[in-house]
Amino acid sequence: MFRLSSVRARIYQLLEPTAWPHPGLSPVNRIISVVILAATATAVIESEPTIHSGREWAFSIAELLFTSIFILEYVVRLWVAGEDARYQGFLGRLRYAVTPAAIIDLLSVSPLLLTFLGTEAFLLRLFRLLRILRVARLGRFSRAFDAITTALHSRRYELIMSVGVAAMLLLVSSTVLYMIEGQAQPDTFGSIPRTMWWSIATLTTVGYGDVYPTTALGQFFAGVTAITGIGLIAMPTGILAAAFSDALQMQRTANSVERISSEDT
Amino acid sequence: MFRLSSVRARIYQLLEPTAWPHPGLSPVNRIISVVILAATATAVIESEPTIHSGREWAFSIAELLFTSIFILEYVVRLWVAGEDARYQGFLGRLRYAVTPAAIIDLLSVSPLLLTFLGTEAFLLRLFRLLRILRVARLGRFSRAFDAITTALHSRRYELIMSVGVAAMLLLVSSTVLYMIEGQAQPDTFGSIPRTMWWSIATLTTVGYGDVYPTTALGQFFAGVTAITGIGLIAMPTGILAAAFSDALQMQRTANSVERISSEDT
Amino acid sequence: MFRLSSVRARIYQLLEPTAWPHPGLSPVNRIISVVILAATATAVIESEPTIHSGREWAFSIAELLFTSIFILEYVVRLWVAGEDARYQGFLGRLRYAVTPAAIIDLLSVSPLLLTFLGTEAFLLRLFRLLRILRVARLGRFSRAFDAITTALHSRRYELIMSVGVAAMLLLVSSTVLYMIEGQAQPDTFGSIPRTMWWSIATLTTVGYGDVYPTTALGQFFAGVTAITGIGLIAMPTGILAAAFSDALQMQRTANSVERISSEDT
Amino acid sequence: MFRLSSVRARIYQLLEPTAWPHPGLSPVNRIISVVILAATATAVIESEPTIHSGREWAFSIAELLFTSIFILEYVVRLWVAGEDARYQGFLGRLRYAVTPAAIIDLLSVSPLLLTFLGTEAFLLRLFRLLRILRVARLGRFSRAFDAITTALHSRRYELIMSVGVAAMLLLVSSTVLYMIEGQAQPDTFGSIPRTMWWSIATLTTVGYGDVYPTTALGQFFAGVTAITGIGLIAMPTGILAAAFSDALQMQRTANSVERISSEDT
Repeated sequence: MFRLSSVRARIYQLLEPTAWPHPGLSPVNRIISVVILAATATAVIESEPTIHSGREWAFSIAELLFTSIFILEYVVRLWVAGEDARYQGFLGRLRYAVTPAAIIDLLSVSPLLLTFLGTEAFLLRLFRLLRILRVARLGRFSRAFDAITTALHSRRYELIMSVGVAAMLLLVSSTVLYMIEGQAQPDTFGSIPRTMWWSIATLTTVGYGDVYPTTALGQFFAGVTAITGIGLIAMPTGILAAAFSDALQMQRTANSVERISSEDT
Repeated sequence: MFRLSSVRARIYQLLEPTAWPHPGLSPVNRIISVVILAATATAVIESEPTIHSGREWAFSIAELLFTSIFILEYVVRLWVAGEDARYQGFLGRLRYAVTPAAIIDLLSVSPLLLTFLGTEAFLLRLFRLLRILRVARLGRFSRAFDAITTALHSRRYELIMSVGVAAMLLLVSSTVLYMIEGQAQPDTFGSIPRTMWWSIATLTTVGYGDVYPTTALGQFFAGVTAITGIGLIAMPTGILAAAFSDALQMQRTANSVERISSEDT
Repeated sequence: MFRLSSVRARIYQLLEPTAWPHPGLSPVNRIISVVILAATATAVIESEPTIHSGREWAFSIAELLFTSIFILEYVVRLWVAGEDARYQGFLGRLRYAVTPAAIIDLLSVSPLLLTFLGTEAFLLRLFRLLRILRVARLGRFSRAFDAITTALHSRRYELIMSVGVAAMLLLVSSTVLYMIEGQAQPDTFGSIPRTMWWSIATLTTVGYGDVYPTTALGQFFAGVTAITGIGLIAMPTGILAAAFSDALQMQRTANSVERISSEDT
Repeated sequence: MFRLSSVRARIYQLLEPTAWPHPGLSPVNRIISVVILAATATAVIESEPTIHSGREWAFSIAELLFTSIFILEYVVRLWVAGEDARYQGFLGRLRYAVTPAAIIDLLSVSPLLLTFLGTEAFLLRLFRLLRILRVARLGRFSRAFDAITTALHSRRYELIMSVGVAAMLLLVSSTVLYMIEGQAQPDTFGSIPRTMWWSIATLTTVGYGDVYPTTALGQFFAGVTAITGIGLIAMPTGILAAAFSDALQMQRTANSVERISSEDT
């Protein structure tokens, strides 16, 4: 006997990562992941004029194909959402439609619709990559993802403070170099905001080399800034290393406490 | 019944971060923080000629406004300082006026005064940003600030030693490159102090690219210097990571010791 | 009485690092290590035209010599492989010949053979360096090697995730800069793939300086990208630091648990 | 009663850091440290032609003065070395004279002597800075120095292995880029040794920008190299962070074990 509800339950399992009973991703979600990557890669390549020109029709077909798949997926997801007790009935579906995940799904469909309306929908097409986060929610990566976010979250104030210290260093070094080099190179060091371009390239140790001080005093303070920049890298790295180490330790301590408890009895 | 002393106590609570009974910053201190940021941003933007020229009056008004607020704040802070037992009476106020926090407050008022005297008070205006440290002393960031300063302080000798090692590497690499490249590029490698500009850009991995060795031997030693530079970044980062990790461990150990003690009884 | 089998056992000991009863490498493996390094160095130097031209015969002789040694070694290894129970008899030798180590050994012999056939065997010659991994398997470095691979392996999902985050940042920053700078510098920012060259140089803080944004908005987002790049360095560094720290901890805990156990009894 | 031996004992205390009974450095060693720094700074400044020319006599006098002090110090150290049981008598003094510390002291005196012989003694003059290591042996920095060297020593195999991995990456990336870019830019990518200059600048993230690939394929592999370079920085940093963390942990564990032991009894 054919039962629509059992079909829905089966599709729900295939589409919803948390409902998949086996380890890893379901075959359907694997295919969707590949389609998302392909759609993003196409959008990236399409921006290159030497590739795009003369092949406009091919990119249009690909776009149509990708969007069709995403529309189909969106509709099916909306239908099977009823398997979840929270999203049953018409009102439940509405509630589902305004979840962040569903909105991202909807936005990933919109580029083609917007193109018909003559609007530039370029950015939205890249936006699709965000959907990979949703599809790839499960599997062995979710624990790694949790570990990273936990570590980042537990040390958020220290990290924000590092950004604050970096901002102050940026301001101080820009001001000092502006005062020293402003006369010699007015185009690039002629104001604090202009000097910030040099300052940020030095503090992050990127050092493009399009702008650099030429006076002896300017070079001295540039050296001080560059050395300070090392500290700027060392600080968040040290904080993150400690946070990750701490997260590992917590797991280990929890395990060893259990082991000791069981040994005691 | 209107009581001046109770008004003073109330204002003291609003101005002094440590006296504020609620978590976070008081509304008054939040406003002052915003004013400090605005005053600093104005000073930064003012340095850009294309923005400044033709709007001198606007910047003058802004400066007058900011300074008026800071003068008012300074006078009020001096008045309410009497709430603190240490700063009561006229002598107490004098004692308050020479605390570092009060001197910073006074300096942040001085730019306008100095401008009237015809002196360039540019730097003092940026100096105001330091005041944010005072105002933002409380709140959830103070624990993060404590954690960072504790970590830095506990490892200060190792960090100073890293700077010493860096200074020696700078001297050695500058000397070696000066001897190798000095003949080929006398303008940039013609003396040890001149070579230091290249050396610091390489050791910090900034690498502007305005100066670089061109002889094969020079490039070989430049490569050695660049690799040494990685060690130069790794050392303080490793020390800081260990220090932060240590600080976390100490908190954890303190907690777990308490827990074990309570479990034993 | 001369016994071929005892000679084979002796040679096996000298050639197979795990069979060598003394600490460190056997004299034969030390010589082979030196030959591998010499063969690799010769291949590197040979690529330099100013050194190669006029000395073609010398490099040919060296190549012939190195390959002869490697052929001899390969044949001897094949012969003595019979000491291992798994590789006895003709079928056992075939099984040995398809192990990754034996294939690398065979490939390191092939450059000369391929040269006779008129094929460019340049890459294969450098491939020989891989053999050093096999020869140097034992000794004090094997523990260090184990520690590093254990640490990398235990945190592989976090590290892969870091690469994923890096890829997303690369995509986002390339897209943003392409949209901002694409008009001003079409040659270097005229498409997302083109902009990626700038983007990767900035995120890794290499900063060649051949390409950089020139508009104010472009420089602002370039600064944001550069700062994000620091996080990109800090994340894997922090993960690795925690993983190494964890590996050390585990050894230490194992030791201290043993010590505590023995103290208890 | 004047006793020469008690004078020698007193001078020994002042000169030998380990014999000084008070914390920190003795007044004499402080003065010597300053003289060493001054002598080094003079040698650095002297290399700058714009400072040196016209002031040759001043630098000659300074050199004479510094060397006189160092000769005096050397002779006195040789005399008072007898306070140490190992260095008593004439043979003991000879034994003292060949210790590394004494040889460094002697070398720091030699520049002037060599100058009289008409030899360029420039390098030897900078060599004096090494003496600071000897003088500054004691004080609070010695513990920090011990902590750093212990950490570096305990992880020496991992660090050497990092260098080995770096060398392999350098070879691989140089070979790949040489094969891709060799035709397009023969001057800078025309051989593996030439390409190494670019390769090392990229792997260390210095990125001078004097050399960079221009073909699309070359830029792709350059990007891969740059990302690998981040791993190259992360690895030793992680190892060092773990080593420093481990050293701290060991101290802490030692302390807590003592505390627990005393609580148990």
